[in-house]
Amino acid sequence: MALINEHYLELSENYFYTEMDKRINAFCVTHPKSNLILLGTGDVSQPLPMAVVDAMTEAVKELSQKETFRGYGPGQGYRFLIDKIIKDYQSHGVSLVADEIFVSDGAKTDAANIGHILGRDNIIAITDPVYPVYENATIMSGRAGHQTDNGKWSNIVYLNCLPENGFKPQLPTEKVDVIYLCYPNNPTGATLTRQELKMWVDYALQNHSLIIYDGAYEAYITEKDVPHSIYEIKGAKKVAIEIRSFSKTAGFTGLRCSYTVVPQELVAYTLDDEKVQLNKLWLRRQTTCFNGNSYIVQRGAEAIFSREGKKQVNEKIQYYLTNAEIIRTEFQKLGLQVFGGVNSPYVWTKTPQGENSWKFFQQMLSEINVVTTPGIGFGQNGEGYSRFSGFNSRENTLEAMDRIKHWL
Amino acid sequence: MALINEHYLELSENYFYTEMDKRINAFCVTHPKSNLILLGTGDVSQPLPMAVVDAMTEAVKELSQKETFRGYGPGQGYRFLIDKIIKDYQSHGVSLVADEIFVSDGAKTDAANIGHILGRDNIIAITDPVYPVYENATIMSGRAGHQTDNGKWSNIVYLNCLPENGFKPQLPTEKVDVIYLCYPNNPTGATLTRQELKMWVDYALQNHSLIIYDGAYEAYITEKDVPHSIYEIKGAKKVAIEIRSFSKTAGFTGLRCSYTVVPQELVAYTLDDEKVQLNKLWLRRQTTCFNGNSYIVQRGAEAIFSREGKKQVNEKIQYYLTNAEIIRTEFQKLGLQVFGGVNSPYVWTKTPQGENSWKFFQQMLSEINVVTTPGIGFGQNGEGYSRFSGFNSRENTLEAMDRIKHWL
Repeated sequence: MALINEHYLELSENYFYTEMDKRINAFCVTHPKSNLILLGTGDVSQPLPMAVVDAMTEAVKELSQKETFRGYGPGQGYRFLIDKIIKDYQSHGVSLVADEIFVSDGAKTDAANIGHILGRDNIIAITDPVYPVYENATIMSGRAGHQTDNGKWSNIVYLNCLPENGFKPQLPTEKVDVIYLCYPNNPTGATLTRQELKMWVDYALQNHSLIIYDGAYEAYITEKDVPHSIYEIKGAKKVAIEIRSFSKTAGFTGLRCSYTVVPQELVAYTLDDEKVQLNKLWLRRQTTCFNGNSYIVQRGAEAIFSREGKKQVNEKIQYYLTNAEIIRTEFQKLGLQVFGGVNSPYVWTKTPQGENSWKFFQQMLSEINVVTTPGIGFGQNGEGYSRFSGFNSRENTLEAMDRIKHWL
Repeated sequence: MALINEHYLELSENYFYTEMDKRINAFCVTHPKSNLILLGTGDVSQPLPMAVVDAMTEAVKELSQKETFRGYGPGQGYRFLIDKIIKDYQSHGVSLVADEIFVSDGAKTDAANIGHILGRDNIIAITDPVYPVYENATIMSGRAGHQTDNGKWSNIVYLNCLPENGFKPQLPTEKVDVIYLCYPNNPTGATLTRQELKMWVDYALQNHSLIIYDGAYEAYITEKDVPHSIYEIKGAKKVAIEIRSFSKTAGFTGLRCSYTVVPQELVAYTLDDEKVQLNKLWLRRQTTCFNGNSYIVQRGAEAIFSREGKKQVNEKIQYYLTNAEIIRTEFQKLGLQVFGGVNSPYVWTKTPQGENSWKFFQQMLSEINVVTTPGIGFGQNGEGYSRFSGFNSRENTLEAMDRIKHWL
């Protein structure tokens, strides 16, 4: 008799964004003429940089000709892309070697799959609020324990992020084995300074913990004291995996490309306290359960690092950051408590009367046809908040803020 | 203290093909002038069909313009592609609905990941020889037990495929929960007739087992009594997941696109014997741990089903099948025992004197610079065999067979 993984039954039926899409679609079906503006999801709106387009057009052509056709690529990714990534890290004072970098099809994929090389009995720490994938993957893998009355999971250690601590987590009082950190943060837009991140690296060094550092929004950093990579902190290569993505950097949400750094120095442990290089385990996992990302997409990603590519990418990022700035300023004028939006495309806002975040979502949707992301989707501490994103067009952002201004 | 998944330590250090590549590279370094012909790996050699190239060129252009740009696609895949897949199934008398199909980036990915929705305590059955991913993923997930003296795993049920049974497995004598079947088979090229496949579906229906049916080589079927899909067999939707790939069908090894069918009727069980739809679990897994395949690649895949696309794909398949026929005939003339190559790009050959398959690989590599795949890579029953593939060019295939003829 084929048995299921019963941990799946403990999850809500739909992934959070699937649930949100369902509600939006339901509204669209009953209100086909509404002029909806999506200020919620993390999807980009601007076309691909031309450098990327040109590189991919060329790559498609290559695959059409016998002399230049390529089949299976290296499972870890092509060197032409990996070498560019290494150079980019160098510009932040971090040196990596090629076999420490694994090109993949998405930060979400890697953040979810990384747990497969880790033991079942690790105690996982996540921030609250948090990108839902870390918690979902922890539940699926059977590491979460059982759900308690407050909706939290008995074996997960939640690191509270609240306005009073600037949405920056404090070190846990109990020992934790694996810590997911995402900075610049999704959803709050908060960042950690070098000193603050050092505190986490030191904790991990002392406790032999592993940090899974999600740097998907690294390209949005504008402030000087905010580190671009966890490896800028001394000792981090011994304790941290870093995940990066081209989705928000260069509009790759529909193309799919990311990379994960697993340093050679990084070890985890057997139950007998033997050290094992995680790089070797992840290499085994990726070469066995994955066949590399598309050649065309990797050529597109490579082009991001060209002089033209960098310039074009930077323009898009500035465009989205300006949108975020517009949202932030408008909410501040309206007297709302606002966070993020400086080193991040996301603005994290307290709902005007501290309303329930699904209720606020539903009201805004039906009354002014603007879509936000309800904070509760990111955890209990997200209740009473909404996430707004700068990823729509300038016109739509201005129009949405105008509607909100007259509505609130 | 971060703990590793210790089951990874039970695996050989390298994935089989990684190991093979290492040996080939080592030879190339010491013999830089050798004119190597790869007749081993399953990678294709011919450029992409023009219909695919045109569709992808157009898709890249779409993403360069604001009006036609697309970000995140549906996690399950775009309807334009899914609808074509449904129509293709219809041509074989199988009706499916859209939410039963999940577009992904590779059959390897799905064959490895499908285990995550299944319980840890399932008894897994695999054929021997077998595509190594099924066994590797079973070991990684902790379902394999321990390795015994003969290299087999205590909790895996091996279904012997030998010349005396035409490389077709017999039903297991013990009860098994999950059965991986791959037909047309990699590596042996064997097929199951409708009647033979029905035996497996009936077994699964009787025992509430799950069949994971890998149909990656379906496009190579030439004989009439060989089913193209397991769903041609009555009742199969209740017990089978089917995985298909565009890699060998249309040269997508470097592009990455596949799909997995999880019928609505298909159930597995909780420990309390409650039925659960696997479709819901896989949907949850894919929307949480994956963000859909690249838009460009999905447009390329769609084009395979156009009239031009079908014609072009068929030409490539005939080309590779002719290569396989050349290999098969030549080996027969040389008096070797040969299998496969009729409904499959693979020819499975007994080594001339029953030599150890790595030794035969190494001799052929160093003496005539032809690369084959050692049968032992597919399991204990593969010892003394070699897999040759029809995926190289006609010229190289003829040249390699000429070298072999004079060498043996």
